[in-house]
Amino acid sequence: MPLTDYPKILLAHGGGGKLTHQLIEKMFIPAFRNGHLDSRHDGAVMDLNGVKIAFTTDSYVVHPLFFPGGDIGSMSIYGTVNDLAMCGARPLYLSAGLIIEEGLRMEVLSRVVNSMKQAAQKSSVTLVTGDTKVVDKGKGDGLFINTTGIGIIEHQQDISPKSVQPGDKILLSGDLGRHGMAIMAEREGLSFESQIKSDSAPVAEIVMKLLEEGTQIHCMRDLTRGGLSSALNEIAQTRNVGMQLIEENISVRGDVRAACEILGLDPLYVANEGRFIVFVPPADAKRALNIMRSFPLDWEASIIGEVSNDMPGAVTLTSKIGTHRVLDMLTGEQLPRIC
Amino acid sequence: MPLTDYPKILLAHGGGGKLTHQLIEKMFIPAFRNGHLDSRHDGAVMDLNGVKIAFTTDSYVVHPLFFPGGDIGSMSIYGTVNDLAMCGARPLYLSAGLIIEEGLRMEVLSRVVNSMKQAAQKSSVTLVTGDTKVVDKGKGDGLFINTTGIGIIEHQQDISPKSVQPGDKILLSGDLGRHGMAIMAEREGLSFESQIKSDSAPVAEIVMKLLEEGTQIHCMRDLTRGGLSSALNEIAQTRNVGMQLIEENISVRGDVRAACEILGLDPLYVANEGRFIVFVPPADAKRALNIMRSFPLDWEASIIGEVSNDMPGAVTLTSKIGTHRVLDMLTGEQLPRIC
Repeated sequence: MPLTDYPKILLAHGGGGKLTHQLIEKMFIPAFRNGHLDSRHDGAVMDLNGVKIAFTTDSYVVHPLFFPGGDIGSMSIYGTVNDLAMCGARPLYLSAGLIIEEGLRMEVLSRVVNSMKQAAQKSSVTLVTGDTKVVDKGKGDGLFINTTGIGIIEHQQDISPKSVQPGDKILLSGDLGRHGMAIMAEREGLSFESQIKSDSAPVAEIVMKLLEEGTQIHCMRDLTRGGLSSALNEIAQTRNVGMQLIEENISVRGDVRAACEILGLDPLYVANEGRFIVFVPPADAKRALNIMRSFPLDWEASIIGEVSNDMPGAVTLTSKIGTHRVLDMLTGEQLPRIC
Repeated sequence: MPLTDYPKILLAHGGGGKLTHQLIEKMFIPAFRNGHLDSRHDGAVMDLNGVKIAFTTDSYVVHPLFFPGGDIGSMSIYGTVNDLAMCGARPLYLSAGLIIEEGLRMEVLSRVVNSMKQAAQKSSVTLVTGDTKVVDKGKGDGLFINTTGIGIIEHQQDISPKSVQPGDKILLSGDLGRHGMAIMAEREGLSFESQIKSDSAPVAEIVMKLLEEGTQIHCMRDLTRGGLSSALNEIAQTRNVGMQLIEENISVRGDVRAACEILGLDPLYVANEGRFIVFVPPADAKRALNIMRSFPLDWEASIIGEVSNDMPGAVTLTSKIGTHRVLDMLTGEQLPRIC
C-alpha cells in the first residue's frame, strides 16, 4: 500500500503499528538513508574516536499526564533510558525538551519536573541540557516532553535485529499490558476490583547485569507502542526469520486481561513501559532467565518462544489448547497517546 | 520575583527573556543540579572516556511552518547544528522527534522532511535516529520538531560564559532581525517593498574556521529567542561583567528596521536564526573579524563592543548621537513561537 493512499496523517501513524512502519520505511528512511537508520533499531550506535555510544530519542505525549503507577515525567526518563539499554548501552546523559501549552498550572509543571528528577536519580542518569517552548492555548495539550539519551557501550556484542539467529530463545521480562490498561482505565474512568498500575520502570540495571555476566545477547527490544506482537513482527521482518511463541508462557495478570476484554483489546498488542524481550542463543537461555529472575520485582521473566527458519517474517502463537494463530503487526490505532 | 507569582505558564515563559530565565533558574536548575547545567551554556560538554563531546537539544514550534527564507524543517537542523557550534563542537549526529497533529497533510510533512534532508546535507550532519508521535486534532499545531545533536570538540579551549574576560571584544556575525521580521510579516500578512527573508542558516563552518585558524574564543552564543540583548545579558549576568556596545556597529537592514518600527519592536530583541556573537581577547579580534568576513555571504561581521568591569551584569549601548542606554533582558513575550 503506497504512502500516498493516505493524504493526511492519521492517529494510527503514531501508533507503532503498520502505518508508523510505513511512514518510517517510505518517507523517513529514504530521506535520511544511512547505515544507522538501516539497522531499524531503537537507537543508533556510533563510534566517536574509538568510543562506542548509543543515541536515542523519544517524545512523550501521553494523556493524561498523571496515571496510576506513573506520569509523563518519570515515563520520559525511563522510556529513553530503556531504549539505550535495548542497544546494550549503559545510560549516562539525557536532554529534555519541554513543549508547554500556555495556561498549564505551574504546580503541575513542578510535579512533573520533580518526577523527572527522581526518575533520573533512580536510573543513574544525568539530565545535562534542556529546552523549553510554550505554545498558545489550544495548540498543545498541557505538556509534551522529548528526551534524548546518550549511553556508552562497554562490550563487543552487536545487539540488533540482524544478529538474531534461528534457534535463539525469546525471553520476556514480565507480564504484559499493565501500562496500556492503567492509562485506559484512567482515561475512560473505568474501575476494576484492584487498581491497575502502569509497569513504567527502568530496566537498564537488569540489562547491565545480563551483560556483566557475559550473556550473549543477539537482540533486545522494549515493548512500548504496538506491544509484544509489533516488536516481534518488526524483528522477524527485518531479519526474515520466523518466531514461534507459546501462549501459556506469556503472563498477563487477571485484572489486565479483564480490562482488555471489556475494551476489546488484545494484551499482546498493548503498550508496556517496563517490559522487554531478549533474544539469546539456546545455551544461554536458562542462565539469562535466572539473572532476570534474580531481581526482587513484582513481575517475573519467562522463555516465551524461539526463532526458526519456518515461515520467515511471521510470528505464530500456539494457544493453551494447541491451536495456532499468526500474530500480525498492529493495524490501526489501538490506544492513541499511550506514551 | 518568586516563580510562584505566576500560577500558570504564560507564552512569555517560552520567549527566551526574563520569564524563561526564571523558570530555568528557579525550577529546572534546582531540580537537576549538576555541573553541566551550571555552565548556563547552549549545550552540555561532556567527557566520554577521553572523547570530549557537546550535546544540545531544541524543540521547534515555529508558526507558520513555512516562511520566506526557510521552514520548520531546515530550521530544526540549522538551529541545533548552530547550538553545537556555539559550544565549539563540530556537529556530527542529530536525532529528530516529530509530534504531528492528526490531519496534517502528507504533502506538507513530505516537504518538511525533504527540507530537513537538504539542511542536514548542507550542514554535514547525519540524522541517525528518530521518533514520531501523533496527537489528536486540536491538541497540537500541525507539526513540532525536536532535534538533539552530538558534536565532537577537537580543541582544548573552554568556550563558555565563565571564560569571558574584561577587555574581550564582542564580534557579531551579521545584520540583525531578519528571521523575526520574516515570520511576523508572513504571520500578519504585512508586505514591504522587498520581501524580508529569514537569516536561518548553519554557522558551524565559520566557527570551525575560527578554531582551525587558532583563534582564542572565550564564548559564543547564537542570537535566537530574545535576540542580541538577551544573549548578552545572560552572559553578563552569569560572568558578572559589564558590556559596552556601539550602536552604529550593529547592522540592521532598512527593511527590517522599517518592519520593526511598524510593529513597535526593537531589532536588538528580535530573534535571528543564523547570527551569533563571539567573545575574543583584543589581540585576536581583527584576525577573527577577517576570518568571519572571508566567507562569501550576504551579511558581514563587525566588532560591536567590549567587555569591562564597569557596571557588572549590565549591557549598555552608546547610540549614534552619543547617548547611553541600558539594554535589559527581554521582558514579556515579544514574538511568540518564532522558533
